[in-house]
Amino acid sequence: MKTCMTGAMTRRTALAALGSAVAAPAVARGGRSGARRPNILYIMADDMGHADLGCYGSRDIRTPAIDAIAARGVKFGNAYANSCVCSPTRIALLTGRYQGRFRIGLEEPIAFNGDELSLPRGTRTLPGLLRDLGYATSLVGKWHVGELPASSPLDHGYDYFFGIASGGTDYFAHATTINGHEMGKLFENRTEIQRPGYLTDLLGAKAIDRMRLAARQDRPFFISLHFTAPHWPWQGPGDAAQGSAAADPRQMDGGNVRAYAAMMEGMDANVGRVLAELAALGLQEDTIVIFTSDNGGERFSDSWPLTGMKGELLEGGIRVPLIVSWPAHLPKGRDSAQVTMSMDALPTLLSAAGGDPGRVEGLDGIDLMPFLRDVDSRTDRTLFWRHRAGDQIAVRSGQWKYLRSYGRDYLFDLSQDERERADRKAAMPGKVAELKAAHAGWLAQMLPYPEHSYSEDMLGKFADRPRE
Amino acid sequence: MKTCMTGAMTRRTALAALGSAVAAPAVARGGRSGARRPNILYIMADDMGHADLGCYGSRDIRTPAIDAIAARGVKFGNAYANSCVCSPTRIALLTGRYQGRFRIGLEEPIAFNGDELSLPRGTRTLPGLLRDLGYATSLVGKWHVGELPASSPLDHGYDYFFGIASGGTDYFAHATTINGHEMGKLFENRTEIQRPGYLTDLLGAKAIDRMRLAARQDRPFFISLHFTAPHWPWQGPGDAAQGSAAADPRQMDGGNVRAYAAMMEGMDANVGRVLAELAALGLQEDTIVIFTSDNGGERFSDSWPLTGMKGELLEGGIRVPLIVSWPAHLPKGRDSAQVTMSMDALPTLLSAAGGDPGRVEGLDGIDLMPFLRDVDSRTDRTLFWRHRAGDQIAVRSGQWKYLRSYGRDYLFDLSQDERERADRKAAMPGKVAELKAAHAGWLAQMLPYPEHSYSEDMLGKFADRPRE
Repeated sequence: MKTCMTGAMTRRTALAALGSAVAAPAVARGGRSGARRPNILYIMADDMGHADLGCYGSRDIRTPAIDAIAARGVKFGNAYANSCVCSPTRIALLTGRYQGRFRIGLEEPIAFNGDELSLPRGTRTLPGLLRDLGYATSLVGKWHVGELPASSPLDHGYDYFFGIASGGTDYFAHATTINGHEMGKLFENRTEIQRPGYLTDLLGAKAIDRMRLAARQDRPFFISLHFTAPHWPWQGPGDAAQGSAAADPRQMDGGNVRAYAAMMEGMDANVGRVLAELAALGLQEDTIVIFTSDNGGERFSDSWPLTGMKGELLEGGIRVPLIVSWPAHLPKGRDSAQVTMSMDALPTLLSAAGGDPGRVEGLDGIDLMPFLRDVDSRTDRTLFWRHRAGDQIAVRSGQWKYLRSYGRDYLFDLSQDERERADRKAAMPGKVAELKAAHAGWLAQMLPYPEHSYSEDMLGKFADRPRE
Repeated sequence: MKTCMTGAMTRRTALAALGSAVAAPAVARGGRSGARRPNILYIMADDMGHADLGCYGSRDIRTPAIDAIAARGVKFGNAYANSCVCSPTRIALLTGRYQGRFRIGLEEPIAFNGDELSLPRGTRTLPGLLRDLGYATSLVGKWHVGELPASSPLDHGYDYFFGIASGGTDYFAHATTINGHEMGKLFENRTEIQRPGYLTDLLGAKAIDRMRLAARQDRPFFISLHFTAPHWPWQGPGDAAQGSAAADPRQMDGGNVRAYAAMMEGMDANVGRVLAELAALGLQEDTIVIFTSDNGGERFSDSWPLTGMKGELLEGGIRVPLIVSWPAHLPKGRDSAQVTMSMDALPTLLSAAGGDPGRVEGLDGIDLMPFLRDVDSRTDRTLFWRHRAGDQIAVRSGQWKYLRSYGRDYLFDLSQDERERADRKAAMPGKVAELKAAHAGWLAQMLPYPEHSYSEDMLGKFADRPRE
């Protein structure tokens, strides 16, 4: 089943692989009350750049715990976020569908007009489907899929929630104010709470609690551990005094690569604590651990050799690290070049848990299990993005990427030039037309942006994006 | 004489250091006919990024020969080019003065209206001053200080010239055409020549020839080895067929980080050949070897953690690697945080050669020898830039940088944030006013831009600089 980068699997072999994957995890199917289903720990960083991890080439940041997941699992080089900003990616992750199918997915990200927005009740979600299979499901960390009480994780498949509903918060005060809007309050389930400590540490500790509880109950667990790190404000674990004094948590006048590294290393340390507890509980072998980010890096991130950043559909805004380990069933220390997107998590994890993604209607994501089990296999796919700020649209199909950004068209051959500097548009007008037409066909399935939806880019705010 | 980063040397101690440095190189003063003066090999890359060398943090490019210079010399972390594009930096290097003091220095870079431009005859230059001290002076490589015959290196202090007069050329054909303008022809002295081979290799071989000749003649040499690498076109040593076929040598539709790495590694290999010959000639101990770049990196460069690129006054456009080795007299394997600029080469090398920079009127550069001999010492200085494209101006003074770029003002504390993301302007209006006033005072000494001078930025040409 080995194929080269440009040689697609045929539909038949792809389907065969899919079928065998669904059939494969005997441990998970027919087991009594799901007790032998794999545990799932899905860890998501916030605004982390593609090269901010040691195992993805970071020069300044040490991430031994996250690198160790890669050493005992599969590391993807062509993993994409569904969006170049926070909320839409999280909606795609929850639903396995393009975010543009939902009204709430048209906020990029959900900002100050999101108080009443929610996914429709009854929308099938990754945690809900796993709960149906007997999983204890917890969201520990950032939600950002609407504000409480209108939109609670508890209404969308999670048994338990500990974290913040908004996009970011002060790491020590767990509350902050932007433009007069209070945000970032800490909740446990539906109740606002006070808890001293550095948020990244609190989230690590709470994930450990949830793992222990599930183990005591002999239930498989699905824990979404959604760190706010390394999102602004720029506060490392030792910055309690400095951080809370910032007038605006976005701190456009503060931060630097050292503070950023401290935030990353604080997150890595907590990943290390969680994984150590997993081992201590004897669950390491049959727990799927995933580590990824919600979108590309922000102003202090490294995305070498990619260009662009959060808020842009250049690769640096949408290509993210993705590491998947499952020691009992997947190869170790291997790379995959399979193109994937955040929305693939639902069919992949449902499949691994013994569910049948084929019975979930309307999914846009695919089951990655065949490509995880055989890391040399691939399937071609065509993925689509749009982002209202800058009138950006993008298509990735095979080695090709069509990008429309701020009034200009580009065509890049990512197999040659992942830095997106060599514009092949003039040489290949047919390919441009083909990908534009494919995008138009996809766009017709998405909801139109309402007049007042919010869409954010980072242009004009930073010195190297100088034009307003 | 140790001072911390922010603690300036007093003027008195600085002058004392300067005095002792001028007095120090006894080997070079009073020797018979300059025979014991140090040889000087000044190597300049073209459009190389701050992080494109192994010893400056490159992840993808191997530069063992250049790294070895750093291991036996002093590596600067705060070295600047006089300009964010080619020609003006070269003019400052030649004259030891801000380029804006010369009409030819107002072309950024010299483009198609530069045929009749030249430095005024009789302008004191680094090679001319060294020639007066008995040096054999050669320019091997790129000139780009006007076109022949109006402006020849032979009219400005060099005994010998082998290379191109223009900004870039095909690495194999040694001639190219942009917008109907023929450029990049290979010259030896004043004569156009044909010579097969990869230009980087030809320049390395020619530098070796010039060293051997000077050694046979028992003369000290000053060789400017000004590679065109890694400037476009994107041709590595093995790309003979591909490269010459490009319709436009700027190749906006080609190139990638691998081709770029091959060009860099081809240059490093030639630096290695030249240094091996230096050792074989027994000249390694008493030869000053300098390696630097003319401006920041172009589209495939890495400048982490800096932002910005060639054509911009952000640090990524102007901060350059600078390595200086002189085994007989300077410390080895040390770093210097002294702020320097291209125009410092003239007083520094003149001083090292036993000349007296204090007798050269009107210099803007300073003698770096005290800071090379005692790498823990520093002197504060205030440096200025302007660049017509984008109406950019910049000042660096101590830890502060004032930047005006595309209609916006910024203030950065480079001691905290070399990435230029945290704008301190609102917090420190007095510092902004002080640096703006200093810039105005400096600008009054520079020539005004003529209406039709050329000024280039890179905005609008690349996907991550999307706005025209």
